[in-house]
Amino acid sequence: MHTNDSDVVIAGAGVIGLVTAWRAAQRGLHVTIVAPEISEAASPVAAGMLTPASEATFGEETLMRFGTLSRNRYPEFITELEEESGTPTGYRTEGTLQVAFDTDDLAKLTDLGELQNRLGIKTERLTARECRRLEPMLAPAVRGGIVAPDDHSVDPRALMAALRTAAERHGAVGVRDRVTEVLYAQGQAAGLRLESGGEVRGRHVVLAAGVWTGAISGLAPGLLPELRPVKGQLLRLRTPEDQEPVVTRTVRGLVKGTPVYLVPRANGEIVLGATQEEMGHDTRLTVGGVWEILRDAHELVPGVSELEITETCVGLRPGSPDNAPLLGPTRTPGLHLAVGHHRHGVLLTPATGDAMAEALAGGELPDYARAFATDRLPTGSEEER
Amino acid sequence: MHTNDSDVVIAGAGVIGLVTAWRAAQRGLHVTIVAPEISEAASPVAAGMLTPASEATFGEETLMRFGTLSRNRYPEFITELEEESGTPTGYRTEGTLQVAFDTDDLAKLTDLGELQNRLGIKTERLTARECRRLEPMLAPAVRGGIVAPDDHSVDPRALMAALRTAAERHGAVGVRDRVTEVLYAQGQAAGLRLESGGEVRGRHVVLAAGVWTGAISGLAPGLLPELRPVKGQLLRLRTPEDQEPVVTRTVRGLVKGTPVYLVPRANGEIVLGATQEEMGHDTRLTVGGVWEILRDAHELVPGVSELEITETCVGLRPGSPDNAPLLGPTRTPGLHLAVGHHRHGVLLTPATGDAMAEALAGGELPDYARAFATDRLPTGSEEER
Repeated sequence: MHTNDSDVVIAGAGVIGLVTAWRAAQRGLHVTIVAPEISEAASPVAAGMLTPASEATFGEETLMRFGTLSRNRYPEFITELEEESGTPTGYRTEGTLQVAFDTDDLAKLTDLGELQNRLGIKTERLTARECRRLEPMLAPAVRGGIVAPDDHSVDPRALMAALRTAAERHGAVGVRDRVTEVLYAQGQAAGLRLESGGEVRGRHVVLAAGVWTGAISGLAPGLLPELRPVKGQLLRLRTPEDQEPVVTRTVRGLVKGTPVYLVPRANGEIVLGATQEEMGHDTRLTVGGVWEILRDAHELVPGVSELEITETCVGLRPGSPDNAPLLGPTRTPGLHLAVGHHRHGVLLTPATGDAMAEALAGGELPDYARAFATDRLPTGSEEER
Repeated sequence: MHTNDSDVVIAGAGVIGLVTAWRAAQRGLHVTIVAPEISEAASPVAAGMLTPASEATFGEETLMRFGTLSRNRYPEFITELEEESGTPTGYRTEGTLQVAFDTDDLAKLTDLGELQNRLGIKTERLTARECRRLEPMLAPAVRGGIVAPDDHSVDPRALMAALRTAAERHGAVGVRDRVTEVLYAQGQAAGLRLESGGEVRGRHVVLAAGVWTGAISGLAPGLLPELRPVKGQLLRLRTPEDQEPVVTRTVRGLVKGTPVYLVPRANGEIVLGATQEEMGHDTRLTVGGVWEILRDAHELVPGVSELEITETCVGLRPGSPDNAPLLGPTRTPGLHLAVGHHRHGVLLTPATGDAMAEALAGGELPDYARAFATDRLPTGSEEER
């Protein structure tokens, strides 16, 4: 069964699939994007912090530079996207405050500040009192912090809706189905087979289905490295109407070595997260996960106790062997990857969209994304290359 | 305007309304029971512990004696109900272990044990080692405990389903609507007005709508004392299939003065609770409530960390001025109450059903329930104790 052939067929409708669709469609390419009816993407679970360097990314300097580049593109990206979609994205520009709970945490934060300076991320070291002046609800125990005024946040659910609308306005078409297999013609990738039995055809195929990409069959051996599901448990909280928000900007804390964050939205919602667990495709909400998040948030901002829990969520971040994304063409003609964004999918959305569209239109990744080419990682079948 | 008249019209389909319906229908009375489509009852949130005396009931000795009487009726009650309904109730007879976390908690538990003995509740004092022999997953910090072999548990959701089926088999009829007003004829209560505009008529009217009873209009001044909503937040947990249950009987703990309990079901579910908060009709799940329950459960049984959270629930227990139920006829002819069961609705279900049916059939409460007559309290919200 052939439907209308597209230029680009994309598996996955998280932020990465959607931004690729939008940017490709803007260039006049005919795009079809396929994803299941009920989203299994990590994007709608994400908090939406745009912080290229944090305690969790030490030692991943190339990735942090790419993150900084993507973060720097965000203001223009949002302006263009909101204009094209007519849809708000919940972009907030109050910056990020990182705070330390004890002296060990403060030492780690000091190292982090130096790293951020090296990467060109503007930060300012703050005393405990200065931290509380910015965020009066912080616990008295907070020892000090760093403010990064240009590390903003976005609402990933609003971002997804805006990207979808913008892509559709450029003619992109969505198909609600699960992708089961890559199809080929004359040695080239030529489309995707769907669970319903149908197929969509196109001269470029982009796999952008996060941890679920590994379940798509028909890939050449060694083409796709293993993507580890890195489970994150989060909570969404609501501020009672008669109360001030407990934080007014993104607050990341290190509490006795454990990271925790609170990301506020304009409507009073607070996203509180997150665990990092490697347990396969397990998406269960656990006592231990929820308890640790609540414990650390309570240590940092005792006033969270009064907030309502409106939602609990679990997402699976797609972690590649080096924790960095795999972008652009593969050794199979016509087959592209946009996977492995791990904790950084939302942050890397603008740069990924630009790089993917350039690769789809011109055949090559731009210089700034070349470190993330799909052939950089040794795999079990390296000798085949 | 007049549809088929009933003998008994009941507002409320929690365990108290349902058991009254069943017991009245068994006596040949024609019963109609009215409750909203979506249950607002506290019963389906309840854990189902059948423990007449706990750290929370000190000083309420009359109530504890009534609870003990009701508990003692449970085995026969369950046998009869399961036979009549053909439906299991999740009744478990492994008893209850109460444990203390620190020396202060142990002192309180010792007092409780003495109280239980006075009430005729069989208990045995256990060392820490003996506690862990019964429940090997208890934290090493547990100092000692008391086992009450005859304090069992039931699954309130299964109990409700069984009561409904049994009542229907005796001809009771359910109406899905909200009760707005008591109706009268010749100075006697004669039925209930429904939100949809309809009404149901009967020569006896029983109000058994928990905290929502106060919203029913048309009652004589001072007839119904104020019922405080006592909010309880609980969690329902699932044991992974490859794991042993973390507890094999009801475990109640005192953790630095705060009570927490774990009630296991046959299917591996654990009910974990509960907060006690007086905040009006607020049913929000809060960070503080969930965090405290998880913290204390984790202190008591660290293995809970591995369990999945399958449900969060909030219920409003109906607390009367003296925390005891109000049962039977009122000074308005034809109008009866079965309200104010607070934390004890499930425990008091057998005794309440018997007492209400006797009062409906014979006009008077039996002796064992007379302490809970509706006219015992000075009108309004004046406290007796």
